[in-house]
Amino acid sequence: MASVDGRTKWVYFFGAGQTEGRADMKNLLGGKGANLAEMANLGIEVPPGFTITTEACNEFYRRGKRWPEGLEEQVKENLRKLEQAMGRRFGDPANPLLVSVRSGARVSMPGMMDTVLNLGLNDVTVQGLARQSNNERFAYDSYRRFIQMYGDVVLGVPRHLFEERLDAKKKARGVTEDPQLSAQDLRELVEEFKGIVRQQKGQAFPEDPWEQLRGAIDAVFNSWNNPRAIKYREIHHIPGDWGTAVNVQAMVFGNMGEDSGTGVAFTRNPSTGVKEFYGEILINAQGEDVVAGIRTPLPVAVLKEKMPHVYAQLEEINKRLEAAYRDMLDIEFTVQQGKLYMLQCRVGKRTAMAAVRIAVEMAQEGLIDRQTAVLRVAPEQIDQLLHPTIDPSARVEAVAKGLPASPGAAVGQLAFFADDAERMADEGKKVVLIRAETSPEDIGGMYKAQGILTSRGGMTSHAAVVARGMGKPCVVGCGALDIDEKRKIVRVNGRELREGDWITIDGSTGNVYVGQVPLVQPELSGYFATLLEWADEFRALGVRANADTPTDARTARQFGAQGIGLCRTEHMFFGEGRIIPMREMILSDTKEERERALAKLLPLQRGDFYEIFKEMLGHPVVIRLLDPPLHEFLPKEPGAVAEVAREMGVTPEVIESRSRALAEANPMLGLRGCRLGIVYPEIYEMQTRAIFEAACRVAKEGHEIEPEVMIPLVGTPGELAFLKERCQKVAEQVMAEQGVRLPYRIGTMIEVPRAALVADEIAREAQFFSFGTNDLTQMTLGFSRDDVGKYVPTYVEMGLLKADPFQTLDVEGVGQLVKMGVERGKQANPDLVVGICGEHGGDPASVWFFHEAGLDYVSCSPYRVPVARLAAAQANLSKPRAGGKARAVEAHAAD
Amino acid sequence: MASVDGRTKWVYFFGAGQTEGRADMKNLLGGKGANLAEMANLGIEVPPGFTITTEACNEFYRRGKRWPEGLEEQVKENLRKLEQAMGRRFGDPANPLLVSVRSGARVSMPGMMDTVLNLGLNDVTVQGLARQSNNERFAYDSYRRFIQMYGDVVLGVPRHLFEERLDAKKKARGVTEDPQLSAQDLRELVEEFKGIVRQQKGQAFPEDPWEQLRGAIDAVFNSWNNPRAIKYREIHHIPGDWGTAVNVQAMVFGNMGEDSGTGVAFTRNPSTGVKEFYGEILINAQGEDVVAGIRTPLPVAVLKEKMPHVYAQLEEINKRLEAAYRDMLDIEFTVQQGKLYMLQCRVGKRTAMAAVRIAVEMAQEGLIDRQTAVLRVAPEQIDQLLHPTIDPSARVEAVAKGLPASPGAAVGQLAFFADDAERMADEGKKVVLIRAETSPEDIGGMYKAQGILTSRGGMTSHAAVVARGMGKPCVVGCGALDIDEKRKIVRVNGRELREGDWITIDGSTGNVYVGQVPLVQPELSGYFATLLEWADEFRALGVRANADTPTDARTARQFGAQGIGLCRTEHMFFGEGRIIPMREMILSDTKEERERALAKLLPLQRGDFYEIFKEMLGHPVVIRLLDPPLHEFLPKEPGAVAEVAREMGVTPEVIESRSRALAEANPMLGLRGCRLGIVYPEIYEMQTRAIFEAACRVAKEGHEIEPEVMIPLVGTPGELAFLKERCQKVAEQVMAEQGVRLPYRIGTMIEVPRAALVADEIAREAQFFSFGTNDLTQMTLGFSRDDVGKYVPTYVEMGLLKADPFQTLDVEGVGQLVKMGVERGKQANPDLVVGICGEHGGDPASVWFFHEAGLDYVSCSPYRVPVARLAAAQANLSKPRAGGKARAVEAHAAD
Repeated sequence: MASVDGRTKWVYFFGAGQTEGRADMKNLLGGKGANLAEMANLGIEVPPGFTITTEACNEFYRRGKRWPEGLEEQVKENLRKLEQAMGRRFGDPANPLLVSVRSGARVSMPGMMDTVLNLGLNDVTVQGLARQSNNERFAYDSYRRFIQMYGDVVLGVPRHLFEERLDAKKKARGVTEDPQLSAQDLRELVEEFKGIVRQQKGQAFPEDPWEQLRGAIDAVFNSWNNPRAIKYREIHHIPGDWGTAVNVQAMVFGNMGEDSGTGVAFTRNPSTGVKEFYGEILINAQGEDVVAGIRTPLPVAVLKEKMPHVYAQLEEINKRLEAAYRDMLDIEFTVQQGKLYMLQCRVGKRTAMAAVRIAVEMAQEGLIDRQTAVLRVAPEQIDQLLHPTIDPSARVEAVAKGLPASPGAAVGQLAFFADDAERMADEGKKVVLIRAETSPEDIGGMYKAQGILTSRGGMTSHAAVVARGMGKPCVVGCGALDIDEKRKIVRVNGRELREGDWITIDGSTGNVYVGQVPLVQPELSGYFATLLEWADEFRALGVRANADTPTDARTARQFGAQGIGLCRTEHMFFGEGRIIPMREMILSDTKEERERALAKLLPLQRGDFYEIFKEMLGHPVVIRLLDPPLHEFLPKEPGAVAEVAREMGVTPEVIESRSRALAEANPMLGLRGCRLGIVYPEIYEMQTRAIFEAACRVAKEGHEIEPEVMIPLVGTPGELAFLKERCQKVAEQVMAEQGVRLPYRIGTMIEVPRAALVADEIAREAQFFSFGTNDLTQMTLGFSRDDVGKYVPTYVEMGLLKADPFQTLDVEGVGQLVKMGVERGKQANPDLVVGICGEHGGDPASVWFFHEAGLDYVSCSPYRVPVARLAAAQANLSKPRAGGKARAVEAHAAD
Repeated sequence: MASVDGRTKWVYFFGAGQTEGRADMKNLLGGKGANLAEMANLGIEVPPGFTITTEACNEFYRRGKRWPEGLEEQVKENLRKLEQAMGRRFGDPANPLLVSVRSGARVSMPGMMDTVLNLGLNDVTVQGLARQSNNERFAYDSYRRFIQMYGDVVLGVPRHLFEERLDAKKKARGVTEDPQLSAQDLRELVEEFKGIVRQQKGQAFPEDPWEQLRGAIDAVFNSWNNPRAIKYREIHHIPGDWGTAVNVQAMVFGNMGEDSGTGVAFTRNPSTGVKEFYGEILINAQGEDVVAGIRTPLPVAVLKEKMPHVYAQLEEINKRLEAAYRDMLDIEFTVQQGKLYMLQCRVGKRTAMAAVRIAVEMAQEGLIDRQTAVLRVAPEQIDQLLHPTIDPSARVEAVAKGLPASPGAAVGQLAFFADDAERMADEGKKVVLIRAETSPEDIGGMYKAQGILTSRGGMTSHAAVVARGMGKPCVVGCGALDIDEKRKIVRVNGRELREGDWITIDGSTGNVYVGQVPLVQPELSGYFATLLEWADEFRALGVRANADTPTDARTARQFGAQGIGLCRTEHMFFGEGRIIPMREMILSDTKEERERALAKLLPLQRGDFYEIFKEMLGHPVVIRLLDPPLHEFLPKEPGAVAEVAREMGVTPEVIESRSRALAEANPMLGLRGCRLGIVYPEIYEMQTRAIFEAACRVAKEGHEIEPEVMIPLVGTPGELAFLKERCQKVAEQVMAEQGVRLPYRIGTMIEVPRAALVADEIAREAQFFSFGTNDLTQMTLGFSRDDVGKYVPTYVEMGLLKADPFQTLDVEGVGQLVKMGVERGKQANPDLVVGICGEHGGDPASVWFFHEAGLDYVSCSPYRVPVARLAAAQANLSKPRAGGKARAVEAHAAD
C-alpha cells in the first residue's frame, strides 16, 4: 500500500496536469482508472477526477463496511483539487461542479454497479446549471436523470417506479418521446421523483452534494459483493479480494448543442482489421442516448466534415494511444461545445479475421514484435477462419443442441438416408444428412452432404471422425432429435420436420436451427499464412496431422502439417467398394478364409500407402495397424448381409450367426487393437506387408523413406515385443523380395492406462510412443465416448467437469498418466520420440499441456493443424522449453 | 565354497559315522544329499556314500564340461572311505562294492536324470556277487538291469532296443514275466545287451568300474542342461545356476529273500492327516519293481507281523524324523536280509484336509508353533474343503474348458432354460443349467440347479456373480459351446448333447466333462475352524464379505467375516417378484413415473437392509448405492416386456422403445454408478431413505448401529461432494422423522483409474475408500470382463499375462494405482479406512499384495472368506506390518 507522509494513500488524482497514476497500476486503480491516468499522462485531455483505490474497497470490507482511516480526508482534498482544476465548486449555487461516479475493477465486470452521472445537482445547483448552460430544460433533464439513477443505483428504489411516472407524464402531455417534454414537465417530474424516493425510503432525497457523493462511493464499494457480481466472479474465476476502485470524474456534456456530441470508436476496424478509424458518434447527445436507441448514430467519419479539428485530434490521439498500448483500442469520448474529452480507452475486442490482420500489420509497422503478434490471436478463434460460420447478426434461436463434432456451419435440406442425400445432391440440392448414427454404408451420402447431424454418438463416433476427416460440419449426439426413419420425420422440441425441410447446423457449437440461417463464408488471407509462419519459428512442439487417405494427406500438407502422426488403416476401408473384402475378412471362420479376404485387401492398402507416402515425401508417416472393434465394420442392413454372403459363398444366416458371435458387451474394451494382431496374426502381417511393399516402391523410385509402424492398444511390454518381432520378420521378408533396404521404426500407442503405468518397460521395446488420448480418456475416466451424451453435458453444466474431457484434456487426471508415460518412457529410452494423436492434439489448452509435459509433437485432424501450430507457439513463448526445440521438429527441419 | 587345506571341498561323505553334511546344506548338497546326511546325523542307518556338490556341477560347466581341479582326487578318496566303511572294494572280484548314482538338485526335478543302480558290476564282479549272494540269477539280473540303465541313461542308447530284446527272450522261452527267465537266460541277455551297446556306440560297454562311475557322474552333470530339465526350470522359475549334486551310495538289496524288502511310506496319513504310519511295502523286491507294477504292494502295517523289529525301528525313526524336520515326511527304505536302511526322506505332499489336520495336531503336540501351523496350509487348497471336487482318481478328460467362475464341481442333467431347470429339479432331477449368458429372469432356475455353465461372459458376469453368491459351481465363457436354444442342443468339440444328458462341470478349474464324473464331498472339520482361529490371531488385514441378502450375510458370518464390505443394492432386485418394480423404475420416462416405481421399491429395500443389519449386529455393513448399467435389468423376452408394460399401463411398444433409448455402446463405461445418482437423484434418495429407515428401526430396538453408505464409480471429488450432501440431507430428514440419532459414514469406491490418481482430493470428501478392483482392472487394462473370453486365455497361454487379471490382481499395473490410491488417500485424510471389495479380495496372491499395500481390510464372497483369512495371516507372518493390526480389525475387535 502506498503511503504519503505516513498516511496510506487511498486516492489518486488524474487530469489537469496533476496525474498520479499510470497504466500499469490496474491492480490498484482498476482498469478504467489506470487507463484514464495513462491518457492524461500521454497529454490527452480527459475530464479531471480522482480514483479511490481497490485497497480502499478491501479495507472497507475489513472494517465492517466503514470507510478506511483517512479516506474521507483524502476524498475531500482531491475534491478541492478538482474544484480548482475545473474552476467550479461542489454545491456552488452559481457555478456548481458536477461529477460522475463509476466503479472500475481490475477487469471489466458487467455485473457490477451502473454509473451515476450529474452528481452534485440539487434544487439550488440545478438553477446555476440552467443559468450557466442557458438551457433550463437541459438542467432539469439532467437533474431528473440524476435522481432516477441515484435512486435506482444508490438508494435501491425500484427502477420501474420512475419509468412508470415518466410514461404517465408523457401520456398526460400527449407525447411519445422524452425530448418532447418541456422544462416545466421535467421540473414537475423532479418533484414527483423525489416523492417516490421519500415514499420508498422514508426520507428525503439527499440535497447535500457531499452526502450524495458519500452515498455513491458506498454504493460502489457495496456493489462489489452484490449477488450479480459474486456470480460473475464465480463464473470467470475472479478472486473476491481484488476489490473495485471508484472513479469520481468531472462531468462533461455532449448534449450542449450541435457543437457537442459523444462517440464510441475503435482505432482500427474490429471486424476486418483494416487500419481505419472506425466507430459511431451521436451529435448533441449523452452516452445514455446511444443506449436508449432513440437516435441513430452516425459513422465517426462525419466528424471530418462537421468538426474537422476534433477529427484531426482524434486521429492524433489514436496514434498516440496505439503507440502507448501497442494494440488496437476501443475508445469513448465526448465533445462539449467543440472541446474533445476522452472518457475511456481499453484494448478492443475483435473478430478472428481482424485479430490476425491487426497482429501481422502491427508487427510490420514495428509497433510490436513477431512474438507478440503470435501471442495476440487466440487459437480458438482460428476455426472461424477455416469454416463457414453463422452470421453473428442473425437473430436466431437454436431448436436443439448436440455435441460440436466437426467445426463450421452448414445449411441444407433434410435427407434421412445416405441414398436420399446422394440423389438430392445430384439434383443440385444442398443437403444435411440426419441419422441416428452413421455407419460405413453412409459414406457416399456423407460425402455429398453439406453437413451431418446425428441423434446418437460422441465426439469420436463414426460420423464425427469421418466428418472431421472430410472437414465437413457435423453435430452428433443430439438427443433431442426423435427420428422416425420409416416415415422420414424428425420431431424436435415440439417441431416436426420432413425430408426436404431446411435446417442449419453449427458444428462449432453443436447448435441446430430450423430453417436457413445466413452464414459468413471464411476467407483465408495472406495475413493468416504470415502469422502461422511466424508461429512456426517460435514453437518447440512439432505438429503433424491425423490423415487416413491421400486426400487427407494433401490437406494436411496444405495446412502445414510436418508429417502424419496417425494414419488409421481401418478408415481406408470405410471407402466405397472397399468395405466388402474387409467384411469378408472379419467374418471369416477359418484362417484360410481370412487369408483369402486379406489377399484382396493387400493391393488396396498398398496402393493407399504408396499414395500417402508420395504426398508426404520427406516427412514422417506413422501408420497404425488395425485398431477398432471389428463389429464396427459389420453389415447391418439385410442388403449388405446378402452381398457379403454372396461374395463369400455362404448363406446370409451364416453371416448373421458369425456377426452375433463377434458381438461384444463392451466393444471398446474388447477384442481390438493389438489383441486382434495377437489372436489373428495374419491381419497385421498383411498390413505390414502392404506398408513395406509400398515403401519399397517409393524407394525404388529414388526417394528416401522411413516407414513407421504403430501398434495400437498395447498394455504390456510383452504384446509389443511379440508383435514387433512378427512385424520385423515380414519387413525383412518384403525387403529381401524387393531387393531394397529401408530404415524403419516400430512404436506403439499409449492409450490403455496400464501402458502409461509401465511406460518404462514398454519404452524398451519401442522406438516411439504416441498417446491415444481418446482411449486414454475413455478408460481413465471410465467414459464411453459413444455414450457420454447421457451425462457429460449434465456434468459440465453442474461444474463437475470443467470441460468435455474428449475436447479438452483432463489435465488433473488423464494428464497425470500422460506425464508419467513421457517421463518413464524417456528415462528408460532416451531416444524415444513421443507424440500424441488423440483429438486433443488440436485443442489449444491441451496443446499447452502437451508442450509442458515435454512431448515432441502433437498430431490432429488436418483442419486443426493451424490451431495447433499457433497454440504450440504461444505455449513455448509463454513458457519456453528447456533445451529448445523438440527432437521431432529438429529431425524434420531439414526435410 | 568350502575348502579344506586350501583345496576346494567338492565331495561330502555321509553314513558310517563319518557324515560331513547337514539338512540345511540343501543348496550345496541338493535335497537328497542333505536329507541323507541329516538322517545319518540323527543316527539313522543309511547306506553310506558321498555327495558331489552343486558347486562342482557349476564349475564343470564353467570349465567347458571338464571336471573341476581336485574333483577326481576327492571322489577317489571318498570311494576309498566307502570301501572301508562297507568292507568291500570297487571292482573286487570276490567282494565287490556296488553303488547307485543319482542326481539331486536343490528342489526335486522330475525332468532330470534317472537313477543308475548296481554300478560296479562287470563280467568279473558279477560272479563275486553271485557267490556272495549265493544267487546266480539275482546277480545276472542285477547285471542285466545295470547295463540297461547305464546304456539308456549314461550312454544314450535308445531304451526300446533293450526292451525289445528282453521281450524277444521271453517269447523265445515261452514265458510272459521277467521273473520266469532263468539265470542262463539273463546271462545271455547280458551278452546281447552288450552287443546292442557296441553296435550303437561303436565301442564296448565299459568294464572298468571307475570308468563306469566317471561316466555316470558326467551324465548327471550333463543332465542338468538337457532339454527336459531346461523346460522344467523355465516353467517352475528355477535358476539355471543352481546346478545339481551327484549322490554316489553303496547299494543295498531288497530282493535278497523273504527277510528283505523295499517300501515307500508317510509318517502320517497324507490323505486324511491322521497320525498313523501309512505306506506300502514289497517283500523281496527292489524299488524298481514297485514302479513296474508287477507285484501288488502290501500296507506297511504287515511288517508288524512279518518283521516286528523292523517295524519298531521304523516307528522310532519316524518319530525322530518328525522331531527333526517338524513336518510330515515321505520316506523310502530297504530291508536287506533283516537289516533296515533308509534311502530317502523328504517333506510329504498331502491333501488339503490332511494339511489342515497335520498342521493343527503338530502344533497341539508341540512339534511346531501356531504361526508355523498357519503357514503350513496353502490358502489355494482351502477351496477344496468347502466344495465338492472331482474325484482325483477318476480317469476323465475334459471336453472343453471355460473360466472357473465359482468353485466346486457339479454333476447334473442339462437344462437349456431356467424354467426347464426348475421343472426338472422339481421332478427330483439334478440339473446343470446351460445358457449363452444368464439374466435376472434366470434366477429361479439357477437356484434350483446344481451348477451353471455359460458360453459367454467373464469372471464377473451375471452368472458368475450370482453363482458365487449362492456358493454354486459355475463355469462361464466356455466359447467351445455352440448352443442351439431352439432345438435344445449343444455342440461341443464334435459331440452333441441334448436336454437331460448328463454333464459335469468343475468351477474350480473351468473344466467341462461329458457324463457323470464321481465327486468327493467336502467335510469341514474342527481342525479347520481351529486353524482359522489361529490365523485370525496373526493377521493385520481385516476380512469382510460381499453379501447382498440376509442369507448371504448369515453365510458370511458363519465363515468368519468381520462385517460386510460390499452390499450391492441392485442384486436385491435380481430376486423373484422384485424385478418388476425395478424395471418400472428404469423404464420411467418422467420423474413422477420414476418416483411411483421407487415408492414400490422402498419397502423392499428397507426390509432387506433391516434383515442384513440384524444379521450383522456389531459389525460394519457398507451398503453401495445403485451401480450397474440399467440395461442389465431390462426385460429381454416378450413375456417380460408385456408384464412391465401392463404394470406401468403403457403398450409393449413403449417399453421396447424406452429400452432402445437406454441401450449403450459400452455400458460398462456408460450411465451407471454415481452418474445415475447425479442424473436421476431420486434413485439414490430412495435408497438412502431405505438404509436410514432400516437403521433407525434397528436402533429403536436397542442396538448400536452405524450404517455406511458407499457411492460407486466416483472419478472426481465433485461427484462425491455433491452426492454426499444429498445423502446427508436425506439421512438427517429420516432421523428427524424417526426421532433417532445415529452415527453414519459416507465413503466411495475407487474403481475408475482417475479416482486413484486424484485419491488425495477424493479422500477429503470421504470417510472410507473401497477399491473396486474388478472395474479398476477393466479400465486400467481396457479389458471388458464380459468379453475377455476372446483373448485373455490366449494371453495367459502365450505368457503375455501371468494370470487372468480378474482372478489375480495385476500387481505391476493395477497394483500401482491401488498403492497410489492408498498412499494419497491416507496422506490427505489420516482417518480414512481403506478396503477392497473386488473379486481379488478372496485371491491369496492378491490378498498378499493388499496386505503389503497397507489396506485395512479385504472383502470377498462369503465362500472365499476362509481363504482370505488364511492368506492375510500368512502375509503378515511373512512380512509383518509396521504398526501392527489395521484399524479395521482393531475397530471391531471388541464387537
